[in-house]
Amino acid sequence: MTTYYERPSKPPRGARNKVRRHAERAHYDRKAVEAILDATFVGHVSFVVDGLPHATPMLYVREGDQLYLHGAPRSRLLQLMAGGAPLCVTVMLIDGLVLARSWFHHSVNYRSVVVFGEGRPVRERDEKLEAMRKLVDQIVPGRAADSRGPTATELKATEIIAMTISEASAKVRIGNPIDLESDHALPTWAGQLPMHLAAGEPLADDYSTADVPDYVRALFNGRP
Amino acid sequence: MTTYYERPSKPPRGARNKVRRHAERAHYDRKAVEAILDATFVGHVSFVVDGLPHATPMLYVREGDQLYLHGAPRSRLLQLMAGGAPLCVTVMLIDGLVLARSWFHHSVNYRSVVVFGEGRPVRERDEKLEAMRKLVDQIVPGRAADSRGPTATELKATEIIAMTISEASAKVRIGNPIDLESDHALPTWAGQLPMHLAAGEPLADDYSTADVPDYVRALFNGRP
Repeated sequence: MTTYYERPSKPPRGARNKVRRHAERAHYDRKAVEAILDATFVGHVSFVVDGLPHATPMLYVREGDQLYLHGAPRSRLLQLMAGGAPLCVTVMLIDGLVLARSWFHHSVNYRSVVVFGEGRPVRERDEKLEAMRKLVDQIVPGRAADSRGPTATELKATEIIAMTISEASAKVRIGNPIDLESDHALPTWAGQLPMHLAAGEPLADDYSTADVPDYVRALFNGRP
Repeated sequence: MTTYYERPSKPPRGARNKVRRHAERAHYDRKAVEAILDATFVGHVSFVVDGLPHATPMLYVREGDQLYLHGAPRSRLLQLMAGGAPLCVTVMLIDGLVLARSWFHHSVNYRSVVVFGEGRPVRERDEKLEAMRKLVDQIVPGRAADSRGPTATELKATEIIAMTISEASAKVRIGNPIDLESDHALPTWAGQLPMHLAAGEPLADDYSTADVPDYVRALFNGRP
């Protein structure tokens, strides 16, 4: 398979990762794709079962051209996903609401990625351990070093799927609504409402005696 | 097709919407599914092309057992999606990070839904107009009445896909980490970091003279 991911030029006509609508919002360079993938930790993983579409949200982390997926999918499906099945992973970050003067030009500011690849199970101990460490740190940077690594039993009970990214595209919308010039005189307020995933006050569980660590407090303003 | 959505009892063994992992987190009743669908406006729509999985994030709104989908997918694919193709839509709201004492028990608090159905194009004028109105109000409640409805040309240029929800399931995780009892004595801080999609300060565009409307200000604390 041609890996457009490795050669970030515009994909040829008909390629699976070619963005057809709002092509001006499309990015195919690896840096753009990776920056978006690295800004969050939930991807929607779709795959085909008996010719029908299935999908499930999963936690993930990227390492090079690998996505490591972890979640609570149905285990029959996890086996299917791990067994070389073609996968499509979509990620979307909502950056704002775009309020235009007309319904038609309402929009959302976002960063999204669609990646294609094939799944494989991660069974090798060191790779699995490293994927688990990275997953924990992707959710809360700094957490892996401050919590207990897996026992042999926990390692065995963890199912992680790796996907080599073979094709990818990113789409980004930023900025103000693009209204018709003839609408500019309307009395309607128009503009953007920025949005981001925000952290609230940390809630200790019943057994915690330690202070909230700095790397947890840092998330207050740190989430994308 | 059996519509488990209409009969919200636990799906039979082997059903497509049966949640197999963490079954204790599963909900099949229509109210639970609808509450989650109605709490946001971005769904990840997956479908099959030439036997391969494809997916794209789209804006949506629910009305009864219909999902109205709107976005900027590639138009060839939009036609396919509209033309009766089996679709799977996943939605996930991140409600918090779950910091356990061990890597293994780290998790995320979330509300997610997986719905299955088939697409159809919305061509009838009144249904399309109503879907557009609802989409605008789903993104910003109260906005449709305060902005210009579509011209005949805009209505024609809008592509909306309806999907009748035939099967659905929801999964919800709430609460603290569930650590091993033997880990409770570890000095690691553990608990939850609540998260929500938060709105920032509204940014007027260059042509706005009106004050920021109350229904926009109300979003500051209103997002899910």
